[in-house]
Amino acid sequence: MRTSPPDPELLALNTATVREKWGLREIIAGCARHRFRGVSPWRDGLAQIGVKEAAKAAHGGGLTVTGLCGGGRFPAADRRARQAAIDDTRRAIDDAATLEARCLVLTAGALPEGSKDLTGTREMVRDGIGEVLDHARSAGVPLAIEPLHPMYCADQGCVNTLAQALDLCDLLDRRGASLGVAVDDYHVWWDPQLRAQIERAGEKRLLAFQISDWLPASREMLADRGMMGDGVIDLPLVRSWMEEVGYQGFHEVEVLSSGNWWRRDPDEVLATCRVRHQTAC
Amino acid sequence: MRTSPPDPELLALNTATVREKWGLREIIAGCARHRFRGVSPWRDGLAQIGVKEAAKAAHGGGLTVTGLCGGGRFPAADRRARQAAIDDTRRAIDDAATLEARCLVLTAGALPEGSKDLTGTREMVRDGIGEVLDHARSAGVPLAIEPLHPMYCADQGCVNTLAQALDLCDLLDRRGASLGVAVDDYHVWWDPQLRAQIERAGEKRLLAFQISDWLPASREMLADRGMMGDGVIDLPLVRSWMEEVGYQGFHEVEVLSSGNWWRRDPDEVLATCRVRHQTAC
Repeated sequence: MRTSPPDPELLALNTATVREKWGLREIIAGCARHRFRGVSPWRDGLAQIGVKEAAKAAHGGGLTVTGLCGGGRFPAADRRARQAAIDDTRRAIDDAATLEARCLVLTAGALPEGSKDLTGTREMVRDGIGEVLDHARSAGVPLAIEPLHPMYCADQGCVNTLAQALDLCDLLDRRGASLGVAVDDYHVWWDPQLRAQIERAGEKRLLAFQISDWLPASREMLADRGMMGDGVIDLPLVRSWMEEVGYQGFHEVEVLSSGNWWRRDPDEVLATCRVRHQTAC
Repeated sequence: MRTSPPDPELLALNTATVREKWGLREIIAGCARHRFRGVSPWRDGLAQIGVKEAAKAAHGGGLTVTGLCGGGRFPAADRRARQAAIDDTRRAIDDAATLEARCLVLTAGALPEGSKDLTGTREMVRDGIGEVLDHARSAGVPLAIEPLHPMYCADQGCVNTLAQALDLCDLLDRRGASLGVAVDDYHVWWDPQLRAQIERAGEKRLLAFQISDWLPASREMLADRGMMGDGVIDLPLVRSWMEEVGYQGFHEVEVLSSGNWWRRDPDEVLATCRVRHQTAC
């Protein structure tokens, strides 16, 4: 075997993996029961119990909040909507601070309705991150730009490669303390530059690591990810590249699977994650 | 308007746009009837009438064969299967020569069944192209590597960016006379490096230009492309980048659309292509 199995203490759960059947409180309890050490909630899920209660529940369950997901959809058709996205991301930063989250994950946003101006849209992302960065610094919450798979460029996120995300980091945050990237295997596994860009990122820019798998027979773009080991991604190899440059953070399972894993008993899903973390990651 | 409409004489048809309803002979007749000046057949369609008859029909209809599609799926699990792909691609080169095609389009091939070795698979592509390049030179048929959208990396083609394709060109064909790229808007429109890589390619490496559109509401990976103008790609902008570096070749419509355009009367499809070429490209 090329690499030894990962430290089981680094297993974390992105709530999107089971939130179809469980609320946030159940997820946190489930994580503790299955000996996950970290949890990464989505912002809309926080509303169920409030951010302070969520923080108390997670920390009470011995969980690190590895990241808060859901900020940064900056591009919009008019100035008012763009300002609203900036204000909303500032509130997300405050929530992340309350949760003591290791980072706020930004998914960048996509082309405004009716727009074909991809370059201009990407400039809105750059400007939006620039607008919230001081607030993130004051709050002590690093921002993690998550490159999304190019198939999401039109309607979810127009930062689509690690190189592009790191260009934004270098442009906006030269010191490298406040802005970094979230590496999600599913989004970046295909990239011929993946290893080189992980090296370029280095430890200080690698703020989060998300895992799932790419199913080769998949024809559906939105929520057809595989459980680790069921697809074609060489997960141990990607992890070894992350570790080579010093990444020591969590391995956060994010399996969006409307046809399979979302339908199962979440206790079965979490038990499977724990096994696959050791056998396939 | 940023750019003037394209020269209508440059309109060409990739047969995949209408082959669900028409055979190759009907497609060629349809192209001539709708004043397309070029056609790009798929290799499996040639078998219907034979390559010599296809050449005669195309040239008789006043059509340039802009490319032959379907060679180059080199990666395979064992040596024998890899050799078979090389032999098959040599025959495709011969067919392209008979057709006087401007290039043979290579779609690279994907991970062999059960493999997670993406780096090794890409090496098989590199080696396969290397094996057939002399044959292509002798036959006077340039090979066009077509980068496929990253969502096809697992099961169709593991060359996924223009940069990656051009790296192969530079590695295998320094003089730049025998190996180039096919730029398909649908596959590359998202790429932050698109303009820079078109510039890098330059006229000599830009062997084909395929057009369709990306539908933002699409959730289906395989055959849900839009007609030019119905999606989010700024087609005139991409064409202007091609023309800035001297590209003067055809604009080849390739709309794979199982739910919409494949179901329509091909005469309607071709008439629509002709209008959209002028209004949306």
